[in-house]
Amino acid sequence: MDSPVETVVGTRVKQELENGVLRLKLAAPPANALSIAMMAELSDALVAAAESAEVRVIILAAEGKVFCAGHDLKEMTAHRSDEDGGRDFFSKTMGYCATLMQQIIRHPKIIIAEVHALATAAGCQLVASCDLAVAADNAGFCTPGVNIGLFCSTPMVALSRNVGRKHAMEMLVTGDTVSAQDALRIGLVNRVVPLDKLRAEASALAVRIASKSARTLKTGKEAFYLQAEMGLAEAYDYTAGIMVENMLYDDACEGISAFIEKRHPHWKDS
Amino acid sequence: MDSPVETVVGTRVKQELENGVLRLKLAAPPANALSIAMMAELSDALVAAAESAEVRVIILAAEGKVFCAGHDLKEMTAHRSDEDGGRDFFSKTMGYCATLMQQIIRHPKIIIAEVHALATAAGCQLVASCDLAVAADNAGFCTPGVNIGLFCSTPMVALSRNVGRKHAMEMLVTGDTVSAQDALRIGLVNRVVPLDKLRAEASALAVRIASKSARTLKTGKEAFYLQAEMGLAEAYDYTAGIMVENMLYDDACEGISAFIEKRHPHWKDS
Amino acid sequence: MDSPVETVVGTRVKQELENGVLRLKLAAPPANALSIAMMAELSDALVAAAESAEVRVIILAAEGKVFCAGHDLKEMTAHRSDEDGGRDFFSKTMGYCATLMQQIIRHPKIIIAEVHALATAAGCQLVASCDLAVAADNAGFCTPGVNIGLFCSTPMVALSRNVGRKHAMEMLVTGDTVSAQDALRIGLVNRVVPLDKLRAEASALAVRIASKSARTLKTGKEAFYLQAEMGLAEAYDYTAGIMVENMLYDDACEGISAFIEKRHPHWKDS
Repeated sequence: MDSPVETVVGTRVKQELENGVLRLKLAAPPANALSIAMMAELSDALVAAAESAEVRVIILAAEGKVFCAGHDLKEMTAHRSDEDGGRDFFSKTMGYCATLMQQIIRHPKIIIAEVHALATAAGCQLVASCDLAVAADNAGFCTPGVNIGLFCSTPMVALSRNVGRKHAMEMLVTGDTVSAQDALRIGLVNRVVPLDKLRAEASALAVRIASKSARTLKTGKEAFYLQAEMGLAEAYDYTAGIMVENMLYDDACEGISAFIEKRHPHWKDS
Repeated sequence: MDSPVETVVGTRVKQELENGVLRLKLAAPPANALSIAMMAELSDALVAAAESAEVRVIILAAEGKVFCAGHDLKEMTAHRSDEDGGRDFFSKTMGYCATLMQQIIRHPKIIIAEVHALATAAGCQLVASCDLAVAADNAGFCTPGVNIGLFCSTPMVALSRNVGRKHAMEMLVTGDTVSAQDALRIGLVNRVVPLDKLRAEASALAVRIASKSARTLKTGKEAFYLQAEMGLAEAYDYTAGIMVENMLYDDACEGISAFIEKRHPHWKDS
Repeated sequence: MDSPVETVVGTRVKQELENGVLRLKLAAPPANALSIAMMAELSDALVAAAESAEVRVIILAAEGKVFCAGHDLKEMTAHRSDEDGGRDFFSKTMGYCATLMQQIIRHPKIIIAEVHALATAAGCQLVASCDLAVAADNAGFCTPGVNIGLFCSTPMVALSRNVGRKHAMEMLVTGDTVSAQDALRIGLVNRVVPLDKLRAEASALAVRIASKSARTLKTGKEAFYLQAEMGLAEAYDYTAGIMVENMLYDDACEGISAFIEKRHPHWKDS
């Protein structure tokens, strides 16, 4: 997987690796805005993580008062004085963002959002794009572009693939913030915990997933999103083929043998 | 958008316009049945509302003991004595209904169902087709065609795009009425309020949405339903393009500037 | 509908027919594993039930400590010593399973899962594939293939068409068991009842559905799953045509007349 954006060596994304869990932390407070530079750093970190055998699961966290406030409106506004009124820069921004979100979906490792505060617009889209999401009880989620005349049209792609239509539409046309508890109810996050337990809960979930066969997780995640876009017959043809190949992995041989022999498996595939 | 049905000047749909909110009220009690005449009036009212700059948001309400009981079974039964056994009239009825429901989805303004009582069959479909729905706590929802040998096959299109498969199937094969609270739980409505607060709640929601940029709402609503039918990559390509165009709207320029300058925006686009 | 698997006369599936409700019970405890033989018997029973005018609704139940533990891992492991490492047998197993699940979806009768205990992997897929599901409060649901290096890739097809993405992904990558109450919350089952009321509840639901017009149920079920894979305009064209044909059924004529005349209908179509 190639990086969709320029390589930038920067400090907007902090990285920690522990027990096979890579913690990527947005660290450009207060907004952790998805500027071109931030998207580039995040994308580069994801590319590196995809290639690293050390990284088994990824947590996407953030520091500061906000989880992520979406695009950098000041950066975008500055380009209104470009000769083309900003069209080219806006295209670049939206293209990078769409590529970044798909990079998460197509990433070979499971990615868990750990949301400690407000996630707005493309920040909410980041959470929706992750495979799993754990939220603090004070977290909030919104797609408020409608309030500034800019409908959250790319965020809606991720949002509407996570929650029902009435819920997605309400968020999109009101711009209102959904509480963590309501986000749980409508399916945008998997779990809600007190803020002081957030990191421990997300880490424990990540560590448990990291204990599974990496090759199996990669195969399953890829198949999950691909079959979701297929009709039923095609989805079954495709996944039946995937399972046959998966049965022939060393890890399936080991895992099934260990299960039958009532012992812990030792994964070999990478 | 042209009216899908004959122009009829009638009194089955009452109209009130206040604060940019058009209130369309089904007013053919007791059943508010979707006869050809009722569908024609409702469709005409929607066409006029689409073209009116005064109308920013639409509420679809009803008066009488029932919100809407679906098709007019007596009207349909009367045509069984036609030379073709009614086939032509049934085709006309189902065609008009399917067009009306898609007119709601394709309408440039946000449409909110305000459900004060029972919504059955095509009446339930009306609610499911609206962008948002607010229900009184005594409201109910059902697709009981199965009880009369006529499966709710067109209502299922709207219903199954709002709620999960097990829930939709249960409503369709049992014909049972789902309470307002259960409708909220499964995602068919956005909010449930006491009956005496229903109109105020729906109106307040409509007024808030009416305060947003009309052009932005139109763009976003259209994109929402179109991207919902696309695969992920296509949906991102499409919506990224939509956002670039939206950034160049006067309203996005004004909205983002107002946000950065911490003032209220003044929309110019219509 | 032809049987997708060899005809086997066996005793792994018990059958009882009462009041138009066929109760198919997996009876190969403790695991009720979906071996080739079990899938063959279940498939044959479904083919026979499709053709029988006596059978109006089907309940899929099981006996023993587990509802269904999925594929027979010992049977599959035994074939690793085949010349091809098992590939041919795994293909056969996955192909039969995918066909069986689609046989449920394409079956002309409504099929209700009655889940008294744990449903895992392809057992969970069975429940997700049924039109409706009633669970005992001690039931559980999981897709734990990831724990043995074999991702539940065919089960995910059914699972992800019942529940939201975050919920499906959590089950698939953790392998954790979801309680009956959580299965209800996320939409995997329709109802949860105490174990000692399970059979009565599922039977009562089945008997009520069995009282409807069989031809109408068949038409509606088929249309439901087909329209689910269509875009909105195509779905409305298709279902409007279905409703016109349905209006011309004897059962619709009788059902609507009975409704207007306030009497019970007497179905004639088979």
